[in-house]
Amino acid sequence: MKELITLTTIKTAATRLTAHTHLTPLLTSTTLSTLLGPCPSTTTPRTLLIKAENLQRTGSFKLRGATNAITKLLESDPVGARQKGVVVHSSGNHGQAVALAAKRAGVPCTVVMPRDSPGVKLAAVEGYGATIVLCDRALTSREQTTQEIVDRTGATFIHPSNHPDVIAGQGTVVLEMLHQAAEMGCPLDTVIVPVGGGGLLSGCLVAGKSLLPNLRIVAAEPLLADDCARSVRANEFIPAGPPKSICDGLMSSMGTLTWPIIRDHVDEVRTVDEASIVKAMRVVWERMKMVVEPSAAVGVAVALFDEGFKAREGMRNVGVVVTGGNVDLDCLPWGSMK
Amino acid sequence: MKELITLTTIKTAATRLTAHTHLTPLLTSTTLSTLLGPCPSTTTPRTLLIKAENLQRTGSFKLRGATNAITKLLESDPVGARQKGVVVHSSGNHGQAVALAAKRAGVPCTVVMPRDSPGVKLAAVEGYGATIVLCDRALTSREQTTQEIVDRTGATFIHPSNHPDVIAGQGTVVLEMLHQAAEMGCPLDTVIVPVGGGGLLSGCLVAGKSLLPNLRIVAAEPLLADDCARSVRANEFIPAGPPKSICDGLMSSMGTLTWPIIRDHVDEVRTVDEASIVKAMRVVWERMKMVVEPSAAVGVAVALFDEGFKAREGMRNVGVVVTGGNVDLDCLPWGSMK
Repeated sequence: MKELITLTTIKTAATRLTAHTHLTPLLTSTTLSTLLGPCPSTTTPRTLLIKAENLQRTGSFKLRGATNAITKLLESDPVGARQKGVVVHSSGNHGQAVALAAKRAGVPCTVVMPRDSPGVKLAAVEGYGATIVLCDRALTSREQTTQEIVDRTGATFIHPSNHPDVIAGQGTVVLEMLHQAAEMGCPLDTVIVPVGGGGLLSGCLVAGKSLLPNLRIVAAEPLLADDCARSVRANEFIPAGPPKSICDGLMSSMGTLTWPIIRDHVDEVRTVDEASIVKAMRVVWERMKMVVEPSAAVGVAVALFDEGFKAREGMRNVGVVVTGGNVDLDCLPWGSMK
Repeated sequence: MKELITLTTIKTAATRLTAHTHLTPLLTSTTLSTLLGPCPSTTTPRTLLIKAENLQRTGSFKLRGATNAITKLLESDPVGARQKGVVVHSSGNHGQAVALAAKRAGVPCTVVMPRDSPGVKLAAVEGYGATIVLCDRALTSREQTTQEIVDRTGATFIHPSNHPDVIAGQGTVVLEMLHQAAEMGCPLDTVIVPVGGGGLLSGCLVAGKSLLPNLRIVAAEPLLADDCARSVRANEFIPAGPPKSICDGLMSSMGTLTWPIIRDHVDEVRTVDEASIVKAMRVVWERMKMVVEPSAAVGVAVALFDEGFKAREGMRNVGVVVTGGNVDLDCLPWGSMK
């Protein structure tokens, strides 16, 4: 199945995205590079480069996969897509992304959301013009509600990660990073990508390894949601347990499309504890002046605070995908704000 | 005196800055452009373009003026500059900016700060390697302490705004904005610049009006610190009153260099109330995913919430300088965070 996602499908996705997504900046910070520290043996300084997908439209990289999937659907069935629309179940970034992508394409969109979703998330999806259908929080309720909508309306279901067009869309992140880093005179040798369902990671693996076989791609995962690390260690798929981490975007299991790509191509999976994630998140807010969500800080936590990762020789320019910035400003995970 | 600052001195400043400052992105947001709204009579959509100087090194545009002033000092007196150093009094962005610029130039730097300054600000200045001298909060104490250091050490005092090299450095912001906006296919017709001491505004006026005489440059000021608006209205300099606004970066009076430039060239001064400033700040955090300080949100508040400004015909592409992002994350000015 792996061949469903190739460098060609990712490059095609990139051309579909140009009018719809921001070319987000690749940013450096002396403070963060200093925290990463120099190469252990040579003491050559190393540079950290942050791909700021929190500055992407809808506040996350998810718009890439959503836009690619909907554009491709329109290309293959323009009348059907506009009549029957699309449906997702998501209380998070994928829901907002599909809602906006569908609105721009003139495709009706239904987002199935738990009825206890925060008001700000409901408002965002509604603001993008989608129809919201409320359900219970349990995954089975969401899936059942979604399936009923598919059966009744013929709408196309767009999975948040285990979908070839979504994966190809997410893979465009690495195309941009490699290009931008080279332009800045800092060609990447290492890229850190957070992993949840694995859509972003598998897309980045296909794009990155196809263009630069020696590019080292490291997955970053919360220790409290470490199904990818355990699966890679066991060399067999182990589903995610019940959600425990602060990283609400990284709770889902890998899928039948994403897991084989990750298994075959990821160089390493690094896990970080919750305290390191919050610390990394705060460093980005304080020093880079960017609002990033916990799930987006996991890769930064690896680069700044994972001594095992930092001890590696031969790294020079390390790119990190900072995946999103959708966070409740009234409920921040540090000290007096709790 | 105006001729101390010309397009040539600003362009020279730009060449001095390239190795030291970030080329900060010029960002658009559909949400913010929608809040600005269309042209009233033609209903043509208008675009808001945010110059994100909060993403500048040290978290504010102040690094530009500081770097230009110190580089020029080194050019004119390399031995003296390195022996005697520089001194500033600032509890804010100028202190951090001069500290970093001096460190990179190998110039000793003393920053005079009130002894009740927040620990995070003291730590930032110290982190950039400057010597901190504590004084009382009153301006007279700061000035006296600074003068004593100048007398004793021969250090060069760098004023935060009323200094030709500082003004020229700040003016580079508008050079970049005009270039970036044109590259994006959104040539600017209007630029909004916050005004405190007026260093940024006067630099932007000289650069902007020299390059594009029809460019409309609007000053943005808190209603609770409206000395610029009152001065322009009276056509004579009125000093700032005691600080009352949340915008700690916009409390100082204009100076003998900045006021005449502002008087002669600014198209309009718009004032906004504190609630609009906080609202604009929160919109930037929530929708653009950027940490910006209250002083930096004043221009955004004009663009989004000042009906008098928005009613103007003929505007199409409006640039706003978002000046900085140095804010205490444990003390944010909204709701439950207070």
